[in-house]
Amino acid sequence: MTERLVVIGGDAGGMGAAGQVRRRRPDMEIVALEKGRWTSYSACGIPYHVAGDVASLEDLVARTPQEFRQQRIDMRVGHEVTDVDLDTRQVAVRDHEHQRTYRLAFDQVLFGTGARPRRPDLPGIDADHIHGVQTLDDASRLMAAIERRPPHHVVVVGGGYIGLEMAEAFTKRDAQVTVVEAGRQVMGTLDPEMGAMVAAAMVRHGIDVRTGTRVTGFEADVVHTDAGPLPADLVVLGLGVTPNAELAEAAGLELGAGGAIRVDRRQAASAEGTWAAGDCAESFHRVLRRPVHIALGTVANKQSRVAGINIAGGYAAFPGVLGTAVSRLCDTEVARTGLTEAEAVAAGIGHVAATIESTTRAGYFPGTKPLTVKVVCERGTGRLLGAQIVGQEGAAKRIDVLATAIWTELSAGELIDVDLSYAPPFSPVWDPVAVAAREVAKLV
Amino acid sequence: MTERLVVIGGDAGGMGAAGQVRRRRPDMEIVALEKGRWTSYSACGIPYHVAGDVASLEDLVARTPQEFRQQRIDMRVGHEVTDVDLDTRQVAVRDHEHQRTYRLAFDQVLFGTGARPRRPDLPGIDADHIHGVQTLDDASRLMAAIERRPPHHVVVVGGGYIGLEMAEAFTKRDAQVTVVEAGRQVMGTLDPEMGAMVAAAMVRHGIDVRTGTRVTGFEADVVHTDAGPLPADLVVLGLGVTPNAELAEAAGLELGAGGAIRVDRRQAASAEGTWAAGDCAESFHRVLRRPVHIALGTVANKQSRVAGINIAGGYAAFPGVLGTAVSRLCDTEVARTGLTEAEAVAAGIGHVAATIESTTRAGYFPGTKPLTVKVVCERGTGRLLGAQIVGQEGAAKRIDVLATAIWTELSAGELIDVDLSYAPPFSPVWDPVAVAAREVAKLV
Repeated sequence: MTERLVVIGGDAGGMGAAGQVRRRRPDMEIVALEKGRWTSYSACGIPYHVAGDVASLEDLVARTPQEFRQQRIDMRVGHEVTDVDLDTRQVAVRDHEHQRTYRLAFDQVLFGTGARPRRPDLPGIDADHIHGVQTLDDASRLMAAIERRPPHHVVVVGGGYIGLEMAEAFTKRDAQVTVVEAGRQVMGTLDPEMGAMVAAAMVRHGIDVRTGTRVTGFEADVVHTDAGPLPADLVVLGLGVTPNAELAEAAGLELGAGGAIRVDRRQAASAEGTWAAGDCAESFHRVLRRPVHIALGTVANKQSRVAGINIAGGYAAFPGVLGTAVSRLCDTEVARTGLTEAEAVAAGIGHVAATIESTTRAGYFPGTKPLTVKVVCERGTGRLLGAQIVGQEGAAKRIDVLATAIWTELSAGELIDVDLSYAPPFSPVWDPVAVAAREVAKLV
Repeated sequence: MTERLVVIGGDAGGMGAAGQVRRRRPDMEIVALEKGRWTSYSACGIPYHVAGDVASLEDLVARTPQEFRQQRIDMRVGHEVTDVDLDTRQVAVRDHEHQRTYRLAFDQVLFGTGARPRRPDLPGIDADHIHGVQTLDDASRLMAAIERRPPHHVVVVGGGYIGLEMAEAFTKRDAQVTVVEAGRQVMGTLDPEMGAMVAAAMVRHGIDVRTGTRVTGFEADVVHTDAGPLPADLVVLGLGVTPNAELAEAAGLELGAGGAIRVDRRQAASAEGTWAAGDCAESFHRVLRRPVHIALGTVANKQSRVAGINIAGGYAAFPGVLGTAVSRLCDTEVARTGLTEAEAVAAGIGHVAATIESTTRAGYFPGTKPLTVKVVCERGTGRLLGAQIVGQEGAAKRIDVLATAIWTELSAGELIDVDLSYAPPFSPVWDPVAVAAREVAKLV
């Protein structure tokens, strides 16, 4: 009998694997079940659609259900898996369009169920004007709401990447935007002084940034905080995400870091023939040397590729993550990889850190822009632990050099001499990355 | 008695070391002898001054003689070393301004004598309208010539980086520019199909590119070639450089790769207390595993730092080069690192190569631009050997990720999973570097 793979979830965590399996095992049957309308899309592009930079939500779709079907992947949208039975090896599926429920047998099952925005347990949290931004379905609901009633006052709850990107997007729609963050800084994934540079850029851009302020509840047109009420015709949740691991847990699979599905290096979950990849799965952190939950499109795509190779009978291992991330916020570029100083302290790793100012091009070259690079490395050994960059155009992608250096366990002293490229339109003769390495190496 | 270091040459090869020694050994006397007028400058910036993008030659100077003197470095400009005697440990110096010659004792001597443009032995080669572009003195002579008689027809002899950068610069001065290259392609440091993309960009920019054409001689206003005469009121030499190693050779020091001064890992030359760094010295190539001569500002700065640490009694080793280089030519960005396919063949290294097309930002993101990445790796092992990038704005600096990966001897398969950053304004979800690694890994 034909072997059947059931993929739960039609986005990055699931569909990269489906593609790998299709290429490697033309004989295998692949059924992909997506509860929403959209498949394989760039959720990271949503803020740019809201801002008006990207014309249509369809532009964010990498592959449509029709395109998957042309690859002989049986993609069923509007089909929600409600139960996974590992004894009978069947999933229960709700077909929302035809209002029917059916069961489907599988030999192997891949969880690519993603994550959902955290919703704090506060009065009024379920009101219609409170939006998470995780899926294209979320985005279409949000756009419909904007068109019905263009918002004058937007409150973003939480100061992470997605919240801040959405904050900027709404300024382009001429809304008055307030970011409310309970912690002492926005961009909590950066060290405070680096996060402060981003906050300053947001404020210069006309965004009201309120740190140390806790939301206490929601009403129509008002967000209540411990520092008083804020007008809000529309609220965006930017408090991070929770892995959609309930289905896997109910099936008896083990959960791991951050409540995500526990996986091994091959993306195998804890029962034979079960796999997980993407925002619903944990990842191994190469610097911390333990599993973490990091929900990022890059990680989802890589894990899915690894899962697919293994499902198809090949061998692949996912070597882990560094938590590398980049964003452009209010003409400011910001990037991080590895550990911040605060994270090194929390992990009990002895460290030294240095911060340098440099420029994106030769100092004399037209269009050169300032940038700040912070590098953290292990005390004693000099092993690179992490880096952060805040700057203007042309600054942030340099984080990839630091990510590659951390990945390969270079020390700061070794990074100084790596043969990086130079020409006046691209960097000073000592690239800012090397300058930062040189400074931190002095402290080891 | 105070120990004295004599540094021969006031630019990158010498002065980085002088700075290191000053900081580490406050007691040591440092005399730096520069035959020209300028110290510590960005020769790479000259084309941008010629183009009018950088207002003044002074803008290219990182540190003036006066600034060195404030650091207690006895910087003497217009002083040319004419002989180095390792027996008496004295240099002979010609002070051009005062037309006198004197001798100066040293304990240690550092050669930072740089390189000079190659001048083919052809009729008329010494004419005044034929310019090399290596030093700021060269640049001031060139600018004076341009001001005396703005050129209508410029011929660039040789199709390397500097020649092509100068070609573009002269188009900004409304000159008709012809590049004459004896080989089959411009950008001979790239594989032919990558070089062809650069040539196409130059031609679109209105530059006449003549490959397979040999210059046979020069006359006033004419360059003779084996394909006929070309009008030329000004000629730029872009045939690469020769190390200025004669002084070291005459002193009895060994020469190495490409006629450059032979050095060990610490930048020590072949006699006690003698050192060399920068364009006059050889470098160890990490992929070829043998010395080469590569004249680049980045290498000069790094070697000079290493030499300085060692001269001051510390310990530092220069780990080598990959021949990483980057340039912006006619709105096209171009970069390379490690070996081209042709160089792998020449070195007898079994290889596979893949070339991919991608974009600088997410495909749907405004301002996304095409780029081409070629990756070469070792057959069997998959060890990365080299990479080339040609593309538009935002393309070329990615070469640094590949350089870091080659530096640390990653395989193509390992590079696929490195945690590189992603957001729609910066790259597709699979960075072009990872896409290229994925394609070439399939061929290993």
